[in-house]
Parts: sequence; structure tokens; C-alpha cells
Amino acid sequence: MLSKKEIKDIQSLGLKKQREERGLFVAEGPKIVWELASEFPQQVQQMYALSSWQPPISLPSGQLTIITETELSRISQLQTPNEVLAVFHQFPHQPPQDFRFALYLDTIQDPGNLGTIIRIADWFAVEAIVCSRHCADMYNPKVVQSSMASIGRMPVYYDEQENWLQKQNKPVFAATLHGRSLRTIDKIEEGILIIGNESKGIRPELIELADQQITIDRIGKAESLNAAVASGILLSHLLGR
Amino acid sequence: MLSKKEIKDIQSLGLKKQREERGLFVAEGPKIVWELASEFPQQVQQMYALSSWQPPISLPSGQLTIITETELSRISQLQTPNEVLAVFHQFPHQPPQDFRFALYLDTIQDPGNLGTIIRIADWFAVEAIVCSRHCADMYNPKVVQSSMASIGRMPVYYDEQENWLQKQNKPVFAATLHGRSLRTIDKIEEGILIIGNESKGIRPELIELADQQITIDRIGKAESLNAAVASGILLSHLLGR
Repeated sequence: MLSKKEIKDIQSLGLKKQREERGLFVAEGPKIVWELASEFPQQVQQMYALSSWQPPISLPSGQLTIITETELSRISQLQTPNEVLAVFHQFPHQPPQDFRFALYLDTIQDPGNLGTIIRIADWFAVEAIVCSRHCADMYNPKVVQSSMASIGRMPVYYDEQENWLQKQNKPVFAATLHGRSLRTIDKIEEGILIIGNESKGIRPELIELADQQITIDRIGKAESLNAAVASGILLSHLLGR
Repeated sequence: MLSKKEIKDIQSLGLKKQREERGLFVAEGPKIVWELASEFPQQVQQMYALSSWQPPISLPSGQLTIITETELSRISQLQTPNEVLAVFHQFPHQPPQDFRFALYLDTIQDPGNLGTIIRIADWFAVEAIVCSRHCADMYNPKVVQSSMASIGRMPVYYDEQENWLQKQNKPVFAATLHGRSLRTIDKIEEGILIIGNESKGIRPELIELADQQITIDRIGKAESLNAAVASGILLSHLLGR
């Protein structure tokens, strides 16, 4: 049975401050827990699962706690808790070195968008993601769920000083609504692509750092594209062909 | 002041059955209400707004009800209600006729994905979306919010008999994980693109109807792409160049 302290400790990982202080994060549900634990077994801190759940790896003694549905619903952040919740150690992400292509995210605030962009970047083998200071926290439970296990594979670095972009020596592309048509741009070998905030776009001071503004051609009438969808279209075009 | 019956009538539009019976749907927040009301004024049934709100069009007498924040929070489906809620008449969507390019959605169940796909389709001037029977309801509040005003511009038809695809005389493309590489496929002039369920993909009986399976080339390691992101990448490639 879980102690009150254990329940409180797990619940508190819903807060960014607590996650940072303890260097931990939570993933929930059989699919993502299975994938993360298989690929990054050394990151597992503790798993909490119903007796029906089968772990993907043989866990060291004491690392799996069998709990009841009531206990799971108390520690879960999901509306419908799903069989297993695991606490992982955060990944050791450093500023990217020697990359060919990286994404720079300017104030992506929706956790679902950030998680989806991490997954897209992993699909297209982007080597690193750099987040501006006010992006959503990558260990927010909604980011973790929507990134799937890509959260472990994709190096994500927070540019707290907001000076990382200035120090790079690579072509910088900015996704804007009034740039050069994507269809006139070829596959690129190296660079940094800036994706902007869901409603405000990229801040002007960052657009100024770009060598080229790129625009996804609009044929119809929608006012904008979702930030994650735009990232997917741009990366597919620039890297995927 | 809103009567109990009015409050109940609006709240009940959260349910698909009620929306269908009454031919109505709800949109919330200044941006989408403004866009829908400006572009489709004849669809407005009733607006409920705080006194601070400025309507985009001059509304016929009685069509705007000024309410308090407490009343707004009672009729709102949002966690943080936002200034205005409007009830609209549903759009008269028929089976598509004489289209060049349409999307067929097989069991897209996540409302956010459906709304985002409607918005993407509007961006790329897809002429119609046909939904299989078990897709999310297009008038689900989460679909409306994520589609933005594209919900009014994009004809969406529900294929309740699930026989629409068989009756078409156009090239059919299916987005799968094991088809022909997208990079080997040119811009197309006409056709139907099938997008499958978030976790199960396209049902085999629908894949059989396809002339061509298409796959977005994976360079990295993510297991899959989000259905809306995949739709965006495919439509940009097939229609946007």
C-alpha cells in the first residue's frame, strides 16, 4: 500500500518546480511506459502498476510497486488512469554540439504542441531542439504523453539566457507568414529552423537573426496552421525529400 | 438574466444527440466567434457575452444577450471561459459533388485532430472532407475550437452507410506506413486521400480500395506521426507545390 507521503511525492511531480528540484518526471499508460522503459532502462526510478500489468524488462527488486485502481487514480494526472504510472529520471540534455540541423522553438506554450513537435523532430532526425525561455516545460505530463518515447531520444535544451541563436554559425530559417515560398526552396543540408508562438509567431528580434524567412504556401482560406503541423510540413520539405 | 431553462438548453449542446436534434452548435471565445459571425452572419442563432465584448457585426435585436461572468461560467464548456459564447445553426453540408480533391477520414476519433485536419484542409483548398461513421462529431466543442472558422468553410460529410468511397471514380491514395515513398510522388491534380485512425491506421477493407499507398519517409526513430501532422505533410506535398 502506498503511504500518504509517497502519494504526495508523486502528485507533486505535476509541478515544474518539483520536477526540476528532484530531476524526475512522470509517464503514464502501458504504451509510453513500455517504450521508455525498454529503450532507457537506466532512467526508471519507480513504477506503479496494477497487478494485471506486464513490465517490458525485468525490473530490479523493489522498482515495481503493485497498486490498486484506487491508488492509481490518486497518483494519476489522467482523467482515465491507465494501468501503469512510472517515475523516470530526467534525461541529461546539454546544449547541442556538432549538429547539422536543429529546431529553435520561440515560446511554444501549448504542451501538446511541444510534445508533437518533439515527436516530429525525432521522425525527421532533427539532431536537437532548443527552446526559448518561455516554452512549455518538456517534462509537463502533456508534453511527455504527446511526444511518446521521442522525449528520450530528442535532445532538448532550454536557452535560459536567450543568446544561443546569436552564437551559432549556421544558416537560420524562420517560419513566417510573409517569407519566401516553400516550393522555391530545396532540401537543405544544415541549418536552424525557428518556429514561433501559436498566436504571436516569432519575435521580431529573432526574425532579424534569420538569413531567410520561409512560408508554407496557402491555397485556401484558413488564417494559419497549427505550430506542430507547420513544423511537420517544413521539416518534411527541408529534410525529408 | 438567463433562465434555468436557457442555461440547461445551452449546456445540453455539449451532447451530440442534442446538437443533431436541434441543428445547433456552440463556439466560444472572441476570436472564433468573431470570425464565424463575420463570415457566416446568417448562421448566428444567439450570442451570450460579457458587457465588455464588441460584436463584429450589427446583430438583429435580441440576438445578443449580455450576461455576467458567473452566467458565462455556467454555460461554458471551457475551463477558463472567455468573454463570449455563441450558438450557431449547423452548416448545410451535403455529399460532395464535382470535387477535384477530397480527404476521406477513417475513424479519426480525437476531436482536436479532426478540428486541426479541417483547418489544414481549408489552408490547402481541399474541396471536401468525408468522415467515416465513427469519426468524432464535427460539432463537438473541441473540434470547433481547433478548426477555427474553417468549420464553416470546409464541407464535411458523414458517410453513415460507409459506401461513399466505393462509388467514386477518382484515384484513391491511402496514407500508410509501408507504401510508396512520398518523395517519388508528384503533385496530383485530382483524387481522394484516405487518412486512418490515430492508433490503428486505415481499415484493411479501405486500403483495398486504394490505387496507391503513400508513406512519409522516416529518417529518424519516432514510431509514428500524429494524424493531423501527417495530413498536413501529405497535403502540402500533393497539393501545395
